Amino acid sequence: MSLLAGIHPVREALRAGLPLDRVIIAKGAAGVRLQELIELCRERGIPVRFEPREHLDRNAAGAPHQGVIAYGAASRFATLDDTAAAGGLHVLLDGIEDPHNLGAIIRTAHAAGAAAVVIPERRAAGLTDTVSRAAAGALAHVPVVRVANINRALEQLKKSGYWIYGLDESAPHDYAKTSYTTPSAFVIGAEGKGLHEQTAKHCDFLVRIPMPAGGVASLNASVAAGVVLFEWRRSHSESK
Amino acid sequence: MSLLAGIHPVREALRAGLPLDRVIIAKGAAGVRLQELIELCRERGIPVRFEPREHLDRNAAGAPHQGVIAYGAASRFATLDDTAAAGGLHVLLDGIEDPHNLGAIIRTAHAAGAAAVVIPERRAAGLTDTVSRAAAGALAHVPVVRVANINRALEQLKKSGYWIYGLDESAPHDYAKTSYTTPSAFVIGAEGKGLHEQTAKHCDFLVRIPMPAGGVASLNASVAAGVVLFEWRRSHSESK
Repeated sequence: MSLLAGIHPVREALRAGLPLDRVIIAKGAAGVRLQELIELCRERGIPVRFEPREHLDRNAAGAPHQGVIAYGAASRFATLDDTAAAGGLHVLLDGIEDPHNLGAIIRTAHAAGAAAVVIPERRAAGLTDTVSRAAAGALAHVPVVRVANINRALEQLKKSGYWIYGLDESAPHDYAKTSYTTPSAFVIGAEGKGLHEQTAKHCDFLVRIPMPAGGVASLNASVAAGVVLFEWRRSHSESK
Repeated sequence: MSLLAGIHPVREALRAGLPLDRVIIAKGAAGVRLQELIELCRERGIPVRFEPREHLDRNAAGAPHQGVIAYGAASRFATLDDTAAAGGLHVLLDGIEDPHNLGAIIRTAHAAGAAAVVIPERRAAGLTDTVSRAAAGALAHVPVVRVANINRALEQLKKSGYWIYGLDESAPHDYAKTSYTTPSAFVIGAEGKGLHEQTAKHCDFLVRIPMPAGGVASLNASVAAGVVLFEWRRSHSESK
């Protein structure tokens, strides 16, 4: 059971039809946007409860809740069978532990038009409220697939005809000089660590982002994901 | 006077030859990396003082200092006269208030090969330790220019032959279908707010990053900067 706090995350979850368990609003809180939330809950058949503001303060664990929190799944988990069939862009995360980074990459993947984000059950950060906030609403729109093993997911994608591209600082190919064959799947590793050896072996191509500055120059994992995914999108839309 | 905390930021500042005032090390702290820091201070003629760990805890204001803090300029400020003359890529920030975002954009600009980052004196976050950490060492390598007025800086760049590209969600041109003429300067606005009207008027081209997902899709300012700056780099290196 995860927690959402704040008007925007709760409204996005309601609009996306996520399976929320209940919405809790602070007694005495008012405003057009809260009224709209209550309407949405009625339409969706989601129970609304009113509690003293202290109750929300305590349960939101420091997050700015603006008088509203909700309990429920932060996202509808999808299965790879469902998402792979349509042939859309897949983004797989390999060992991204930081919840801010996880959320930021989901946001970026969504903006670039990803059909699904695949995360490993064990190593990865769960879809907590921190992830949800960093994803800025995207979690309610892009399907997230949780898999027991990222390498088996890659094998399944390959069998479905996907080409697998791994992003790694020490990779041989320049991301901007690589032709991307669709359907495509990108594997993003943790900043500084790169891809696990086993994961890298499952990739058809390993690409890197060359940094003209060299030396200490580096990119945050979500920025690196943005650079590569939007290059994929650009080259793909050009060839149409 | 700004504060740096932690082994990595202090070491990067020392290596880059920044004008540090003094380095303070916790009494009893030990290790190869601290020893290396002390050596660097000797080479650079920067005073080292040993203080009880509580002194560092108090002065680092909650930052994980790993037994070392330093006082001094977080960056050598440059002047636009110096940086513009060489004709390198300039990145100007318009109203970026959040220090994490400011640091992340400086890091990204550096990785993309920017010759300078220009920030307004007033509205922008100062180069605090939070900025320095988010910049992950880049602050010690890319010159930062502080200007009283971002529009006057744009006028000066134009006079020096620069083409000005503004990044704005509602801009008419697709960033990936724009030809960038060098020398180039990019203006990045705050997430959600975009460029100030006056600033937008000073741009030769306003470009947007189209989002296939539409709707709630959006990018963090540092990710958007990465996508556009690396596209600039890609198209520029291709034409060589």
